[in-house]
Amino acid sequence: MLKISIKRPALILDENKCRMNIIRMAEKARKHHLRFRPHFKTHQSAEIGEWFRDYETEAITVSSVESARYFAQSGWDDITIAFPVNIREIDEINQLAAKIELNLLVVMPETITVLEGYLLNPVGIYIKIDTGSRRTGILPDDEKKINDILERLESCPNLQFKGFLTHAGNAYSADSAEEIAVVHRGVLRDLCQLKEKYRDRYPGLELSMGNTPTCSIMDEFEGIDEIRPGNFAFYDVMQAELGACRYDQIAVALACPIVARHADRNEIVIYGGAVHLSKDVLRREDGSRCYGKVVSLTDSGWSQPLPDTNLRSVSQEHGVIRTSAASFDMFRIGDVIGILPVHSCLTADLMKCYTTLDGWQIAMMKT
Amino acid sequence: MLKISIKRPALILDENKCRMNIIRMAEKARKHHLRFRPHFKTHQSAEIGEWFRDYETEAITVSSVESARYFAQSGWDDITIAFPVNIREIDEINQLAAKIELNLLVVMPETITVLEGYLLNPVGIYIKIDTGSRRTGILPDDEKKINDILERLESCPNLQFKGFLTHAGNAYSADSAEEIAVVHRGVLRDLCQLKEKYRDRYPGLELSMGNTPTCSIMDEFEGIDEIRPGNFAFYDVMQAELGACRYDQIAVALACPIVARHADRNEIVIYGGAVHLSKDVLRREDGSRCYGKVVSLTDSGWSQPLPDTNLRSVSQEHGVIRTSAASFDMFRIGDVIGILPVHSCLTADLMKCYTTLDGWQIAMMKT
Repeated sequence: MLKISIKRPALILDENKCRMNIIRMAEKARKHHLRFRPHFKTHQSAEIGEWFRDYETEAITVSSVESARYFAQSGWDDITIAFPVNIREIDEINQLAAKIELNLLVVMPETITVLEGYLLNPVGIYIKIDTGSRRTGILPDDEKKINDILERLESCPNLQFKGFLTHAGNAYSADSAEEIAVVHRGVLRDLCQLKEKYRDRYPGLELSMGNTPTCSIMDEFEGIDEIRPGNFAFYDVMQAELGACRYDQIAVALACPIVARHADRNEIVIYGGAVHLSKDVLRREDGSRCYGKVVSLTDSGWSQPLPDTNLRSVSQEHGVIRTSAASFDMFRIGDVIGILPVHSCLTADLMKCYTTLDGWQIAMMKT
Repeated sequence: MLKISIKRPALILDENKCRMNIIRMAEKARKHHLRFRPHFKTHQSAEIGEWFRDYETEAITVSSVESARYFAQSGWDDITIAFPVNIREIDEINQLAAKIELNLLVVMPETITVLEGYLLNPVGIYIKIDTGSRRTGILPDDEKKINDILERLESCPNLQFKGFLTHAGNAYSADSAEEIAVVHRGVLRDLCQLKEKYRDRYPGLELSMGNTPTCSIMDEFEGIDEIRPGNFAFYDVMQAELGACRYDQIAVALACPIVARHADRNEIVIYGGAVHLSKDVLRREDGSRCYGKVVSLTDSGWSQPLPDTNLRSVSQEHGVIRTSAASFDMFRIGDVIGILPVHSCLTADLMKCYTTLDGWQIAMMKT
């Protein structure tokens, strides 16, 4: 049992595991002479942000202007908003750029026209390159578009070209560490070719890459200047299944009261559903689904995932766990069990607060 | 274009459509002599709750103790918590039961033991019957378990047996209005048989049923005393595809700025993702997915869904719309478009606030 009392679903954070995850990634960055610019979209918490400072983090990544404002208020003064510029927030961007070193992502020439017309202070500009995820960005061999953007940037004194940035979202479709390595090396090749091509014109040009699977698994970063993983601070079931972490490195678990038991089908119903965990899901080849792994809560945290036990469905507030006949009797009405989330970023975003193993509340950005 | 200015994703609520949806369902309840006990888990808003009072709603359903407390503070004094009793919240249940008429759901005999020991004031008890959804509840032919619970209830003066309650969640797996009718008639048959069996012993015994698909489509409620639909206040793409509503009855749309365009694949990237819409999804037979339908925003609301245009993927903050070559040019950087959510309950829960067509903010319960 946890040392603290839980009445409703609560997101339990193991600070030691989280700090170990931060140290490990900060060390890897240092070893490879990379700027460590962790993505704070996962934890969204000023207080957890301070833990990163303990390991000499000075620059961060966020995914929205709102989030940049929140962390700027906590003293972060070098922030990249790793999301295509939303020109409707130009006033907020101006306010931020007056106070901190702000980097923006450009994928569209139209965006530059607006920035040129309205920006009052200098910002750094990364050109977003699509190295295979096909979400957004310019294809690395689309020389015409890249040159078009670079040309426009040269006539805008407030838009300082910093380099090329990519997010290899396709690493999440990989089935193994080997496939992640293939994705990673493709990204390295694409980015390094761009650096080669443009370094004479832009000697300071930097390459920014990296998500949690590639940064956790890989040890090749030749030519890269900066990494921006985020999820690694907590990890989750998806990362464990990709091979990016071990289960005992996952730093958050949703504590859920048990409210019903169905012996005829070895099912347990918990108070904990889509409004707590999100509907992110792992689909198995046999058609079954996993909305989270089930752990026992202990006074020092939680166990490894229980065998033959799976959160098979969630609705708004309910979760249904299927277990084995052998394990069924360990689940009792009113007990609290833990769920390791499939996708910790979305679970944290929903829960809006962490509870440490000692019962402290850690606040997050309110939106 | 909307009359109001949108900077970031905002959940736009068309009050007229919502009120029409409420009137239609309240009228149906009146016509069939049913108590209308709408589920407030969809809107989670005291202010929207007041709209229901305008159509003589006096009793409501919620899915958590927290939510019951919130609505009790707004003067609702007859509330059913349609979720298996979470005995860890017994103190909060006691506080509520001292103030309002509170109904609880029992599925487990163990729960009664705790209620018997700790409850200080009378509450109404519904026995949850599983009429096919296999989430939770007692099977209608499990006479032994039902009798066991009824026997225990008789020795507890604070636990007043009210009747049988079901949620036909399996209606959501239906592929047509005909299949929903089959589910609905099965529920009616199961519940009415129970009423028949127990009405001599419990002459006041009531039957409570109903979710949005069955209550929207069906017109047979013989023997039923109360309906508890919730989603109908807003409806959504899932309901429209089930045949429970027309697209022009959906009362909420997520307004999203356009941040990138990819002409080579007719794709549009919006600021609007899983943290705004949720990851609820409709999967098509061809393997494609729909995370929402795309509409044009107008000064009086929004259009019908645009043809050949689909929100095909979402990540944390991004959404990717696939459209046709013919429609591609209508989407411009900085424009705002609307997304009809797949599941409006989860979208509302994430957005935590509504914006009316006139630009008023409507608050929701904060958790």
